Parts: sequence; C-alpha cells; structure tokens
Amino acid sequence: MSDTRYPTPEAAEAAFYQAFEAADLAAMLTLWADDDTIACVHPGAPLLQGRYAVSESWRGILTDPGRMSIHTESLSRHVGDGMAVHVLHEHITLPGEETPRDPVMVTNVYRETPAGWRMVLHHASPVLRRNPEPEARATVH
Amino acid sequence: MSDTRYPTPEAAEAAFYQAFEAADLAAMLTLWADDDTIACVHPGAPLLQGRYAVSESWRGILTDPGRMSIHTESLSRHVGDGMAVHVLHEHITLPGEETPRDPVMVTNVYRETPAGWRMVLHHASPVLRRNPEPEARATVH
Repeated sequence: MSDTRYPTPEAAEAAFYQAFEAADLAAMLTLWADDDTIACVHPGAPLLQGRYAVSESWRGILTDPGRMSIHTESLSRHVGDGMAVHVLHEHITLPGEETPRDPVMVTNVYRETPAGWRMVLHHASPVLRRNPEPEARATVH
Repeated sequence: MSDTRYPTPEAAEAAFYQAFEAADLAAMLTLWADDDTIACVHPGAPLLQGRYAVSESWRGILTDPGRMSIHTESLSRHVGDGMAVHVLHEHITLPGEETPRDPVMVTNVYRETPAGWRMVLHHASPVLRRNPEPEARATVH
C-alpha cells in the first residue's frame, strides 16, 4: 500500500474523483481503506465487498482509453467523529461527448483510520428521468 | 415530536421498517432526526432534503391501503462514534402478491442525537436484473 495520507474526508474524496477521471487504478486502490469491510455499489449493480471485489471492479472501469470528465455536486453531508457521509451527484462527460450523462446519485462514506481518511463505501445509483414510482412498488421491471 | 427514544441504530432501523410495513406515518416521522439536514433518496428519484420534503414523500408512500411485507437483508455495516451506516437489501412484497419485487439496495445512516439514535439519510436504489454498465457510462437512458 502507498503511504499517501488524506488528512480529511474531503481530501480522500478529491483523490477518488481525480483517480476516477485519470483512470489511475493505483491511486484508486490507495484511497480505499485497507480492509475487507469496504463495499461498493455501481449503478444498478449488486454490492461488492472486500478489497479484491472492489479492486477488480475498478480495474474493469478504469481501463477506458479516453479521458472522461467528472464534475461533482455536493448535496448533503453528515459528519461524525471519525466518519463522514457525503451525498452528491456525479456529472460524467465521456470522451468524445460534449454534455454530461444523466447524473449519478452517490453516497460516499469515509472513515478515519491509522493511515488517514479512507473510503469505506461508495453507493452509486441512477437518477431516472421519468417520474420514479414510490419505493413500495419498486422501480425496475 | 414524540419522546420515543431509540437506544441503538438497530432499534431505529427496526422502527423504520415497522413504520414502513404498517404504513404508520407518525412513527415514520418520529424516527428521523428532527432537523433539516435529513435527506432521502427513493429509488431513481432526486434527493429530498429537510423535514418537510422527507415527511411529504413518506406521506405519499404510506397511504397504501393494503399491508405490504418487508424483509431486510443486512449486507454491510460501518459504525463510528455516534454514527452508523447500514447497507442492506429491502425485499418488498406488495399486498396481493406472493413473491417479493426485485430487491432495493439501501444505505441507511443513523446519528446519535440528544433524543437517541435517529435516521439522517435513506438512499434507496434499484438493483437491475440485466448486467449493469460500468459507472463511467451511466446506466439510465
């Protein structure tokens, strides 16, 4: 593991989006906590848990040859002692495209570890254009 | 506000799903933190923020006449000092149906407040049956 140390949740989050944008797998793997409690949900996908599953998913995503651009929009934050929860929109513009795709709704969770602040959960989900149905009816068919 | 006091995040979560299942709006509104930092994402929907928006959304959902059944499946937990993050599947069976709908992926966040543990964030999202696309390509079109 790298000895990169993020002094705040904001620094870890900035590193996450820099690594995502730059398709820098090594940087991406550094900013996640180094334990098997970490968990990741890509939009519409099942939960991935532990270093191996989370790393392999990012290895698949970050091989894209073109450089995408990601703009984030903070929506809500909940900060506790040693833990921070950030809710935000990701606005992702793909290589060769001029406007962002539909936003991705994200909850990112960071923990303060002996190695500084690290990501422990990334839950990303689609924001539907049509009127979503109430939760009780589920939305996907 | 009720003086109901949840001694643990688990107690607040149990109250959340009991209120959801029983369509008990008063109980639902009690277990959320009594401040305007609370935030709620129903599957595919935009973020709702603050007591008024969150309450109104549940008022709309909890008017269903039949009684649904909700089974939860814990997937991942991150517990800090005064804050807890639970990732789980909701398996919702609607009135008149025999099998649950597709699971809903949920991140619930609880804070310890002077009034006990309360919910501050509910982020629910669809789990797609088809192979989801990588996050970078967004999933919803």
